[in-house]
Amino acid sequence: MADRPSLADYPHIVELGTRWDDNDIYGHVNNVTYYSYFDTVANAWLIDHGLDIHGGTAIGLVVESGCHYHAGVAYPDRLRVGLRIDRLGNSAVTWGLAVFTEDDDQAAAHGHFVHVFVDRVTRRPTQIPEPLRTAMAELTG
Amino acid sequence: MADRPSLADYPHIVELGTRWDDNDIYGHVNNVTYYSYFDTVANAWLIDHGLDIHGGTAIGLVVESGCHYHAGVAYPDRLRVGLRIDRLGNSAVTWGLAVFTEDDDQAAAHGHFVHVFVDRVTRRPTQIPEPLRTAMAELTG
Amino acid sequence: MADRPSLADYPHIVELGTRWDDNDIYGHVNNVTYYSYFDTVANAWLIDHGLDIHGGTAIGLVVESGCHYHAGVAYPDRLRVGLRIDRLGNSAVTWGLAVFTEDDDQAAAHGHFVHVFVDRVTRRPTQIPEPLRTAMAELTG
Amino acid sequence: MADRPSLADYPHIVELGTRWDDNDIYGHVNNVTYYSYFDTVANAWLIDHGLDIHGGTAIGLVVESGCHYHAGVAYPDRLRVGLRIDRLGNSAVTWGLAVFTEDDDQAAAHGHFVHVFVDRVTRRPTQIPEPLRTAMAELTG
Repeated sequence: MADRPSLADYPHIVELGTRWDDNDIYGHVNNVTYYSYFDTVANAWLIDHGLDIHGGTAIGLVVESGCHYHAGVAYPDRLRVGLRIDRLGNSAVTWGLAVFTEDDDQAAAHGHFVHVFVDRVTRRPTQIPEPLRTAMAELTG
Repeated sequence: MADRPSLADYPHIVELGTRWDDNDIYGHVNNVTYYSYFDTVANAWLIDHGLDIHGGTAIGLVVESGCHYHAGVAYPDRLRVGLRIDRLGNSAVTWGLAVFTEDDDQAAAHGHFVHVFVDRVTRRPTQIPEPLRTAMAELTG
Repeated sequence: MADRPSLADYPHIVELGTRWDDNDIYGHVNNVTYYSYFDTVANAWLIDHGLDIHGGTAIGLVVESGCHYHAGVAYPDRLRVGLRIDRLGNSAVTWGLAVFTEDDDQAAAHGHFVHVFVDRVTRRPTQIPEPLRTAMAELTG
Repeated sequence: MADRPSLADYPHIVELGTRWDDNDIYGHVNNVTYYSYFDTVANAWLIDHGLDIHGGTAIGLVVESGCHYHAGVAYPDRLRVGLRIDRLGNSAVTWGLAVFTEDDDQAAAHGHFVHVFVDRVTRRPTQIPEPLRTAMAELTG
């Protein structure tokens, strides 16, 4: 069983609202949906720091992801999602993420995913563009 | 073409964050996703006013829905969703909803859906329980 | 209450599998998900008949949609979706769709949506390109 | 980089259709959606072998999941999903899954998730019920 991280382990925290259809037939947020939270929070950070998802030459493709689930959350909970960078390479970045309810600083779930930056047209790996990479360096521990 | 309502036409307004996967291949929030916003906002109001989605005897089934789309929105926009009640019957309620961006009080999209309250087990129509119905009356124009 | 159409009312029928997360907390396919079925079936037909969703100059934007729900369906049901064209204009097409279970030729739900074809870049209405429009004419009653 | 499994590595193969909203803004199936495919295929197998998702006393909760992405797929591709069991315990099962396009027997993506069977009410771990467990044993290598 993986360790359960705490809020203090993540330098960037954002609020995120759940949706009706996040709950599955068992009454809790479906395991798949956490990855949607991860995508949403990491890409919002990227866009805030200059990534142009509509027309930029570099785009981030996900090559690996994973999640450990510790406790159930459910709509209409309001959540907090923590973001950090676990590894920063030339063209790849490993995001660390965790989901917290409003009243518990121990993660309900935590996971990661790896973005490889590629050229939008050729889909070949490309260096993470500046000033994005410098901003990323501040999210590493 | 349907009229484009404004923020002032809705007595209850809530904030709602978009998600990465709300955008489709054309770069805007997919038409389907607006209905997820509608469900999320109306059911949150119901839960706030006493509906027990996990074990209550009455549940709301959707029998009709519709939406008009006026202008595109896109992740990572933050949205405002307006809620009102257009018609209130014994067992049925017609919700009116609209989606607004942060800087435009004219709706990007507006629609409706009809909830019929039924018994969770028999799925036969049942009266909208009190005090939910009294609260609903305040959301009608 | 809207009439419940039958399978024979639709000239084009395709099979569609449900997914785990189509079911909501009440154990049936969520009302929102039907619109995803509609999008999937109409766009597959468009792509089969020449629409290039990745780079074509004309794209279809949805300006209106609606659905009536007659009977519940649930994962892991296999479904049949019927497609027809209810109105065909110069730049707009109204799709009629209905969802059927495997053992009932009366629709579990039926609805429509309106596509306006626009230029991908300017987003201004454009004529439905040939040979797409000729193929569409065969889907009208 | 993880190895790329082939179709022959999976004893149970099912067909699965993509949907319009599986594609994200970059024109390929979003990384999150693969987990929806995994859930769909494993739970369909469970239901086929006796699991009652609506009222059974045992339900499967996901405690861990992960995926490696090797090649893009896109709507309207038709996919094949392979299912096997990588580890079978008293109350837990590790599913191995992979996604294949119609014309490539090397996986476009492969992953796993761990189901812990719990009592629906108490949410405490329970033995995997028979005859489900015996059927599972046949899916292990």
